[in-house]
Amino acid sequence: MLRLEKADQVQPLLRETGLGCWLIFVRETGLHPDPGFELVVGTDVVRNSAFLFGAGGERVAIVANFDTANVRGTGVFREVIGYDEDIRAALLDVLRRLDPQTVGLNYSLDDVTADGLTHGHWLLLNDLLRDTPFAARLTSAAPLLSRLRGRKSPTEVERIRGAIATAEEIVECLTPHVRLGVSEWVLADLVHQEFRRRGVAPAWGWESCPVVNTGPASDVGHAAPRDDLQVEPGHVVHIDLGVRQNDFCSDLQRMWYVRRPGETAPSESVRRAFATVVRAIEAGAAALRPGVRGCDVDAAARRVVVEAGYPEFKHGLGHGLGRAVHDGGTLLGPRWPCYGSKPESAVEAGNVFTLELGVPTEAGFVGLEEDVLVTERGCEFLSSFQRDLLLV
Amino acid sequence: MLRLEKADQVQPLLRETGLGCWLIFVRETGLHPDPGFELVVGTDVVRNSAFLFGAGGERVAIVANFDTANVRGTGVFREVIGYDEDIRAALLDVLRRLDPQTVGLNYSLDDVTADGLTHGHWLLLNDLLRDTPFAARLTSAAPLLSRLRGRKSPTEVERIRGAIATAEEIVECLTPHVRLGVSEWVLADLVHQEFRRRGVAPAWGWESCPVVNTGPASDVGHAAPRDDLQVEPGHVVHIDLGVRQNDFCSDLQRMWYVRRPGETAPSESVRRAFATVVRAIEAGAAALRPGVRGCDVDAAARRVVVEAGYPEFKHGLGHGLGRAVHDGGTLLGPRWPCYGSKPESAVEAGNVFTLELGVPTEAGFVGLEEDVLVTERGCEFLSSFQRDLLLV
Repeated sequence: MLRLEKADQVQPLLRETGLGCWLIFVRETGLHPDPGFELVVGTDVVRNSAFLFGAGGERVAIVANFDTANVRGTGVFREVIGYDEDIRAALLDVLRRLDPQTVGLNYSLDDVTADGLTHGHWLLLNDLLRDTPFAARLTSAAPLLSRLRGRKSPTEVERIRGAIATAEEIVECLTPHVRLGVSEWVLADLVHQEFRRRGVAPAWGWESCPVVNTGPASDVGHAAPRDDLQVEPGHVVHIDLGVRQNDFCSDLQRMWYVRRPGETAPSESVRRAFATVVRAIEAGAAALRPGVRGCDVDAAARRVVVEAGYPEFKHGLGHGLGRAVHDGGTLLGPRWPCYGSKPESAVEAGNVFTLELGVPTEAGFVGLEEDVLVTERGCEFLSSFQRDLLLV
Repeated sequence: MLRLEKADQVQPLLRETGLGCWLIFVRETGLHPDPGFELVVGTDVVRNSAFLFGAGGERVAIVANFDTANVRGTGVFREVIGYDEDIRAALLDVLRRLDPQTVGLNYSLDDVTADGLTHGHWLLLNDLLRDTPFAARLTSAAPLLSRLRGRKSPTEVERIRGAIATAEEIVECLTPHVRLGVSEWVLADLVHQEFRRRGVAPAWGWESCPVVNTGPASDVGHAAPRDDLQVEPGHVVHIDLGVRQNDFCSDLQRMWYVRRPGETAPSESVRRAFATVVRAIEAGAAALRPGVRGCDVDAAARRVVVEAGYPEFKHGLGHGLGRAVHDGGTLLGPRWPCYGSKPESAVEAGNVFTLELGVPTEAGFVGLEEDVLVTERGCEFLSSFQRDLLLV
């Protein structure tokens, strides 16, 4: 089972990151999902619950008695301790037994998938550990979480491939419907019908997955598709979509061009824009290999866009992709304050990233997004790289 | 629209709780839902985003440019400021303009629906506000959030009623299927088919919603239904289920008794247990009115159970019910450490609670759960109080 595969990665990562113990501290996970908790537990708990991974391979869960059966059922924890009224005694007992010199918690200033601990729960944990040596040993487990999440196991890569294949099939189903007079909303609705028919969820919120943009008046970003914007001759039609299938996501952008009467090909400016986007993604992919910093990969693609005379895209070139569509860890992005230190982290083999960017044209937004796996020496495209505009 | 109704409650609540400003600070809300954010915004955002409600009625959103269109679309915010690389300048500008003496944030040691701010994001906010007077003015908005969430608007009560009606219809559909030899798993699967047919979600995780227990060997709690436990003569069959419909939840427990050959009624001990549970819920309902502390309502019901010679139930008598199935705010519960200060808060008119408890018998677990609305003088049952065992 996948959570066992991930749990087996934890002990070596504790050694690698120098942490004495990883402590997942959660409650009401149905309301407050913790991305780290989901990797290795993945069954909901209600009351204050602690999951400890020790550097010596110890795996202990402390949960309310109502939740012990489900947590035992995961098979991840060698010891599952139940309580009724107060978690404190059991938690201190386990910490004294493990006696870790550092206790890594799920918080991070900039990596959202390493930031599952709420602030109130941090305060509560400090209360519970008051007058013990452990309060002073709390630290961030972000270095561990970034690697645990980023280094995809073969099963994880297979599941991502599956989610990409489904998204590409949906794009194929959509192509015959990209026709004059069809609105953004109708195209989005067709995608939703395919989601339902295939029993998959959108990779992000229904209302803006897919994003659909036809022509220059459409708002590029996360906005919902509009029924008052319809496909017209000379439009580029752009879609950003992804599915969540077997708990893993895909994230793609695809493009059509709608010819004017008599046109055989798009205008020179659309062709130039599309070719620039393709070249920029190629440049990013060429720079992508283990050990390189995320910001350097971003810079390689960004340079192509800027040197071609287009405005810089206002986001990073690529984000991690996996259980979450924005999967945290290293970001292939510029060193902007909003991204914190994530663009300075190093790329690792087994990471899966998007490569995505776009430029504006008078025919509409021209943008692509591909999904790639970092290999020992470079990267492999998991998606079928769109190198030609689909002509309508 | 509901979020406008809730947003209109905020300004009076700022006055009532003495807060100068409510600041919702979120990012990647698809991954980290914030229960406070969902009440008044409810469209996902990706980068660091701030939503400010001032005591003077100001409503300002600061979000990445990609998200401005969706946030404007909510109609909640008079001002929507977009940014690309760094939220800091816009955030400080708005704070200087409002100049609140206290800034309430979404964190709480014990109220999970008031605890949406992650610890990493708290640290980041402190970084952003460093060397400004605002860093020292940060405090918890829990008193505001508890009231905002707890005081249901008429629309909210209507939606909860709808979710309860659906859950009760599903119980009715289930009754003909509670028969000898049917497993817990099969009964749960029938409920899931009804969820799908009606287009509603379970009120908590699929795998343990519903909880189904047949006979004394079944594990009471949040455990998943088992296929190796089947309905036998002399069993009590117990179900705990709820649906999420139009974003609001129901939460009910219902009971059947499966007669042995020749039996016309359950055994004396089952009848006594059921009558005790009914009386305890009646005692809780009789104690429930505005101004009473949650722990006193719990004590009224708990006393009935203990005085009848049964063991105490290992949870609170009732939790808030609404957008979340465990909706936060005041808890009708005992003053146990795991519940923090929530049992000491006062009940208010407009609150919706569950009333739930059970006792063990040799025929299985006997438990009920009803949903009630607190009125000006007492409470009204929103569910059809089960006063008789359903006989099979």
